[in-house]
Amino acid sequence: MHEAPREIEELIDLMAKLPGLGPRSARRAVLYLIRKRGILLHPLADAMHAVAATARECVVCGNVTTSEICEICSSEKRATGELCVVEDVADLWAMERAGVFKGRYHVLGGTLSALDAVGPEELRIPKLVQRVADEGISEVILALNATIDGQTTAHYIAEELDGRCDVTSLAQGVPIGGELDYLDDGTITAAMKARKAL
Amino acid sequence: MHEAPREIEELIDLMAKLPGLGPRSARRAVLYLIRKRGILLHPLADAMHAVAATARECVVCGNVTTSEICEICSSEKRATGELCVVEDVADLWAMERAGVFKGRYHVLGGTLSALDAVGPEELRIPKLVQRVADEGISEVILALNATIDGQTTAHYIAEELDGRCDVTSLAQGVPIGGELDYLDDGTITAAMKARKAL
Repeated sequence: MHEAPREIEELIDLMAKLPGLGPRSARRAVLYLIRKRGILLHPLADAMHAVAATARECVVCGNVTTSEICEICSSEKRATGELCVVEDVADLWAMERAGVFKGRYHVLGGTLSALDAVGPEELRIPKLVQRVADEGISEVILALNATIDGQTTAHYIAEELDGRCDVTSLAQGVPIGGELDYLDDGTITAAMKARKAL
Repeated sequence: MHEAPREIEELIDLMAKLPGLGPRSARRAVLYLIRKRGILLHPLADAMHAVAATARECVVCGNVTTSEICEICSSEKRATGELCVVEDVADLWAMERAGVFKGRYHVLGGTLSALDAVGPEELRIPKLVQRVADEGISEVILALNATIDGQTTAHYIAEELDGRCDVTSLAQGVPIGGELDYLDDGTITAAMKARKAL
C-alpha cells in the first residue's frame, strides 16, 4: 500500500507501533499532526528528543527519572521504613495519583512468568531483598496486579522476605462504586472471604 | 498531578492531544516509548521532524504531499476526465486502498456546516468549479461521507456544477459482509430504494 509520500508512510508505520494505536488510528493521528504542525508536531518531536536524551532508570528503585536517583527516592519527605513493590512505572504513577502512600517504591520491571522465562534474576527481586536489609525496612507492601503472574510473584517475594520484615498486600474486594452485578466471581469471592464487621 | 519528571510529563501532555489517545493511553505510550528508546523513540522523533519539514498541500487537489503537486495529480497514468471529490485526505487514502478509482481527486478540506460557519469559500469548492472548466472534466464523483453535512455539501456541489459535467455519487446500501440485523434503519431504507434486478 502506497497512498502517501514516503516520509509520511514512515511516520504512520512508527506511530502504529504504539500501544493503543493501530494502522487506521495511526493514519488519523498523522493527518491531525500535519494539520497541527506548529502547535503539535514540532513540539512533540522536540519533546521526544528531550525524553530520549534524559530519561533513565532510578538506580535505587527502578522508577523513570531524569537524574541518577528519582525524586521520590531522594525526597526527605517520604517515609523510609516502608517500601511499596509495583510491577512497573505505570503502577507507581497510579499509586502516586491515589496519594495514599507516603513511603518509597520498588519497581520490579514485570512479574515472574514460567511461560516467558522470567525468573527472579530478570526482575529487581534480589535488589529488593538487599534494600530491605540495607535500608532497615520494616514493612514491604506488595501492590501487584491481581493476575495469576502478579499473585505468583507476590507469594515468591513474601517467601524471600519471610522473617526479614512485615509483608502485606493490597486488599482485594469490591471496587468503590462497583456494582455486584458487573463483578466477576473471583472478586466477589475475595470480597466475601475478607468481609469485615461494621 | 506531578508523578513523572517535567520532560516526561510534557511528552505525555502532548501525546494526550492526539486523536484516539487519552491521558491514560498517553502515559502507557510514553512508558513504552522510553523502553523502546533506540528502536522507536528516536526514529519517531526524527520521522516527525522530517514530516514537519516536508509535508504540504498539493496546490492542485489539496492532497498531502512533499512536492508542489502530489503524486496522483502529476501521474500520467491517472485518467484526466474524472474527478473524485472527498472531504479529507483520510478519505482519499481509503479510496486509494480500495484501488477502484483511476482518475484524480479533489480534497474539499471539510464539509459545509452552518453550525461551524463553514461556507463554500472555506472549502475548496470554487477551486473545484474552476478545475472542472480548466481540465475539461466530464464526470465528478462525489465520495462524501453519508452524514447530514456530507450530503448537504454533495447537493450544493451538484447544483454548482449543474450543466457543466456529469455529477454522480457513491451508491448507498448494505456494506459487503453486512448483516441486516446490525444495520441502521437509514441504511436499510437506502438499500431498499436503490434495489436492483438480479
